[in-house]
Amino acid sequence: MKPMIHPDERIDRLSARGLRIIQSSEVFSFSQDAVLLAHFARIPKHGTIVDLCAGNGAVGLLLSERTLATIHAVEIQERLADMALRSIQLNNLTEQFFVHPMPLADLRTQWSHSSVDSIVCNPPYFKERPTSKKNENPHFTLARHELTTNLTEVCAISSFLLKDKGKLTLVHRPERFLDILHALKAVNLVPKRLQFIYPKADRPANMLLIEAIKNGKPDGLVIEHPFVVYDENNNYLPEMRQILHGE
Amino acid sequence: MKPMIHPDERIDRLSARGLRIIQSSEVFSFSQDAVLLAHFARIPKHGTIVDLCAGNGAVGLLLSERTLATIHAVEIQERLADMALRSIQLNNLTEQFFVHPMPLADLRTQWSHSSVDSIVCNPPYFKERPTSKKNENPHFTLARHELTTNLTEVCAISSFLLKDKGKLTLVHRPERFLDILHALKAVNLVPKRLQFIYPKADRPANMLLIEAIKNGKPDGLVIEHPFVVYDENNNYLPEMRQILHGE
Repeated sequence: MKPMIHPDERIDRLSARGLRIIQSSEVFSFSQDAVLLAHFARIPKHGTIVDLCAGNGAVGLLLSERTLATIHAVEIQERLADMALRSIQLNNLTEQFFVHPMPLADLRTQWSHSSVDSIVCNPPYFKERPTSKKNENPHFTLARHELTTNLTEVCAISSFLLKDKGKLTLVHRPERFLDILHALKAVNLVPKRLQFIYPKADRPANMLLIEAIKNGKPDGLVIEHPFVVYDENNNYLPEMRQILHGE
Repeated sequence: MKPMIHPDERIDRLSARGLRIIQSSEVFSFSQDAVLLAHFARIPKHGTIVDLCAGNGAVGLLLSERTLATIHAVEIQERLADMALRSIQLNNLTEQFFVHPMPLADLRTQWSHSSVDSIVCNPPYFKERPTSKKNENPHFTLARHELTTNLTEVCAISSFLLKDKGKLTLVHRPERFLDILHALKAVNLVPKRLQFIYPKADRPANMLLIEAIKNGKPDGLVIEHPFVVYDENNNYLPEMRQILHGE
């Protein structure tokens, strides 16, 4: 099935192994954050994986290279959900990967609790609506700001959906780190693995990856090795090159 | 005043600028942790600094190179406190740096609340007494295990002593990270700066440094650049060499 591509859209390469993804400058494109989240996430070989706040589906597409599990992408923006669906068709993944254009809150009534093995999420990062940017494209505003969902809801829905000992893996910003820990703790999701992403070796972290286990034991947090993206000349360091280009 | 050196003791170089410290293989020596804590801590030029769990005084001695503030070291082990006192004499710091051989709990009754600008602490790291090492030297056991004090007490005493917006700076282990955040939060010490220490660039963190502000605003946590100690050949990387040897 050959999906339709709209005039404003283009097809980008998503992975070294040949995944492609439909993107448009009119909506939020996948970012480095999605790529690093997919790389960091430990996922089961079989079972059920859910991508919350899935955007145009980049994280789920990347995960499909590493698992036979069924993948469900949940995205409130219909335009993005539709692009994700067409990217799934483009990559011949329609039997493994499903898209649900709906708000997260509806998962509580429409899906079963304790039914999911692993959840990944690249949520909106910013707490408040930017009052100074009223005319910003609403697709970007929704993807960046906690308007339709927030950390508390992401964690609560994840705890509802996950099986006992199931994993939630998030990418977020360091300045929200304490909020993240608070939201996880409130619903008994216990942080087990953290990785900080540093743009350069001598700069503060600008991203973090965190894995939490539902009803996990409180001990044993690991801070994984520092992930540094660029060298001093703004070239990708080998670890990032490997992820992006398979080199 | 020339301090007495006991037969089991030796005088080690502590800093590139010439500080010396009395050490003994019979008690806990200062470690890389103390050096990194002193380096990470932001301290005032004047005022009052307290080092809790001061051991033989390494952290306070290192801080004395950067400030005119009065420094108070609190150490429950009399043997270590005595060594610290003699190191202070050895470095001619008796007018700036004072030692208090006492348990932390006594600070509540003997010192004034909201009187200290900055507190540093390299506390015992381990939660439980090692049942397998009954014959271990008690000086080491007390320095390593939470027997005479623990994170909750360190944070509570710090919050009591610190002025409004005063700083507590801790060095600790990543596996206790969630406990640290919990203990800080309980007494309104708000984390503002974190740095993870990685033994090598491809290894998980084995140490963390954290600065918390009494009654600080909840937003604005910074994860400082990754501090990597050794290169792949086990040689110190330049940042560590600079701290240790001033090169």
